[in-house]
Amino acid sequence: MAEKMVVTPWETRGEIDYDKLIKEFGTEKLAEELVKKIEKKAGKSTHFLRRKIYFSHRGLKKILEDLDNGKDFVLYTGRGPSGETHLGHLLPYLFTKYLQDAFNAKLYYELTDDEKFFTKEKLSLKECTGFAYDNALDFIACGFKSENTRIIIDTKDIGLLYPIAAKVAEKTTFSTAKAVFGFSNETNIGWIFFPAIQASVAFIESELKGKRVNCLIPCGIEQDPYWRIARDVAEKLGYPKPGAIHGKFLPGLKQGGKMSASDPSSAIWVTDSEKEVDKKIGNAFTGGRATVEEQRRLGGNPEACNVHAYYFFLFEQDDEKLARLYDDCRKGKILCGECKKDLAKRVNAFLKEHMKRREEARKHLKEYLLK
Amino acid sequence: MAEKMVVTPWETRGEIDYDKLIKEFGTEKLAEELVKKIEKKAGKSTHFLRRKIYFSHRGLKKILEDLDNGKDFVLYTGRGPSGETHLGHLLPYLFTKYLQDAFNAKLYYELTDDEKFFTKEKLSLKECTGFAYDNALDFIACGFKSENTRIIIDTKDIGLLYPIAAKVAEKTTFSTAKAVFGFSNETNIGWIFFPAIQASVAFIESELKGKRVNCLIPCGIEQDPYWRIARDVAEKLGYPKPGAIHGKFLPGLKQGGKMSASDPSSAIWVTDSEKEVDKKIGNAFTGGRATVEEQRRLGGNPEACNVHAYYFFLFEQDDEKLARLYDDCRKGKILCGECKKDLAKRVNAFLKEHMKRREEARKHLKEYLLK
Repeated sequence: MAEKMVVTPWETRGEIDYDKLIKEFGTEKLAEELVKKIEKKAGKSTHFLRRKIYFSHRGLKKILEDLDNGKDFVLYTGRGPSGETHLGHLLPYLFTKYLQDAFNAKLYYELTDDEKFFTKEKLSLKECTGFAYDNALDFIACGFKSENTRIIIDTKDIGLLYPIAAKVAEKTTFSTAKAVFGFSNETNIGWIFFPAIQASVAFIESELKGKRVNCLIPCGIEQDPYWRIARDVAEKLGYPKPGAIHGKFLPGLKQGGKMSASDPSSAIWVTDSEKEVDKKIGNAFTGGRATVEEQRRLGGNPEACNVHAYYFFLFEQDDEKLARLYDDCRKGKILCGECKKDLAKRVNAFLKEHMKRREEARKHLKEYLLK
Repeated sequence: MAEKMVVTPWETRGEIDYDKLIKEFGTEKLAEELVKKIEKKAGKSTHFLRRKIYFSHRGLKKILEDLDNGKDFVLYTGRGPSGETHLGHLLPYLFTKYLQDAFNAKLYYELTDDEKFFTKEKLSLKECTGFAYDNALDFIACGFKSENTRIIIDTKDIGLLYPIAAKVAEKTTFSTAKAVFGFSNETNIGWIFFPAIQASVAFIESELKGKRVNCLIPCGIEQDPYWRIARDVAEKLGYPKPGAIHGKFLPGLKQGGKMSASDPSSAIWVTDSEKEVDKKIGNAFTGGRATVEEQRRLGGNPEACNVHAYYFFLFEQDDEKLARLYDDCRKGKILCGECKKDLAKRVNAFLKEHMKRREEARKHLKEYLLK
């Protein structure tokens, strides 16, 4: 029996039903009309939208309408720094880069070292802050430019965040936070306050500019509860409601679920060696049959295959080629071994380039940090 | 019937029974032995201790023993900046000054602008921060030297406070905060987090020095719940438990209760004009009789007299003279009118000097602020 679906900012497990998530979170399906508007602005299409990897939103329509009327927006994305970076973390960065290029938008990237300290029993605050600086390098390596990108590390930049967060917090009761995040009496008071910190970044630009500036947040749908809080209080505080565009999770290499920082072998980490990548992908859960003979005769099932998912999410962005791969699998023309080998090659090439850029990023980190 | 006693960090009303408070808060009566130790160190006595205006403590004995063994401590006091300063606010400053001189101790003075914003519905954060800078002048005017005194304004200095507060918060559940502070589901999440901020100041010196430094907190007993939280988590975080020495409340001019910022006429504000002082004291609640004739015959009741309380708390520090005043009142030798007139003269002289120092403080404020 499939495990019950659980999707919160702190935990994702079970078989994910994205249509159900749209209903549960109360968000909107990303309509074709909005996709076209974005792609037109970008001047190019992206597999992230064509394949509905970004599939849901909140308030995007209004932000794009405002843009038509000459009102710019800023982008805001982030990461909870509880460990090194894996491929699943890079997806939203890459989509955000596409949006930033499309709209020539300023971007805030938040590293929530405080959150990870509040929510992960085994991590010290120092460790979380350390991971934040480490994760920032992977973010920069995705090609963001320092001219229009600012990296926020919560404990370092709390001077800017706290006065805004205080205003959000003052308008948010425990009762509301409990309903939205499932807090209990045993939740620590840092964790309870934290949603105000995460919401505050959506209002930074309005605060700094002294006028209403829209904010669009590309993120996993599990982050949506924060934007519900942010949208609830925005108008009361004189800020525009932030919008969000929600992505799907890159599956882990094992059967089901999200890539998990708590099970390192379920994910490909940017620091994995070629050999480790080969081995992990070699051992990945696929939609293949028990024997070569069966595979040739009955074909594989790319729908249930993590290896195919990696092509789908990132490593084969050409739709025709992806369709061929899909068909070949279905018809038993290609075996899991070949398919895995090819993916491993692509992943290793990607990581080699990424790690080169990551080293380069070290020299420039300071240019991205808030003063 | 006397109003029920309520003493919390945010509200004080009813007739105060200090012995009962010691029991309710679970603190210790300030023993004569500790008073003597302090006065010996100071090289002089103070009416604040002789008259048991500071009457209770938590952990003071240990801090003084540590001092005997060569371990210094820092002092920490503060104010919630929800308005201008009245005489009731100056009492702890003056006692703290006595302690600072006695022990040649570094002092942290915290202005909790965030707290007042979280807890006072009508105040904006900007207003609270404005009051903080204003209150700081009255604090400096009490004679503190910038060499060993640091003023903390929460929203301004959150960069230093937050990482320490985060560690306190991570060890404090909603359940604990609820039990200690009486929070409910309708309490806002800023207020819920705030105890971690207030507790964090007790640990600053340990954090900055990278070693365990004791901290003694002179304050009203209503602040004690914060130190309970701070003491609860201290050892888990590698900090020594802070100690506190608790003062009584200067009564308001009206019958019963603390001086109240919400009823301006109940208090004498540092900015009151001579005429206002004369008028307020002229209208003060006393222990006098209905008529002059009765007063001469039966005598007054200084125990129930706010005017006498002002002499007791600050304006007659000579015990013999105070005793004479008390007796003269009891025996009907002095009438309320005379007594009030003399007090008003003393208060006005005090305020004149204070306001002069306050103006002077403006020029030096920066020297006291944290970098």
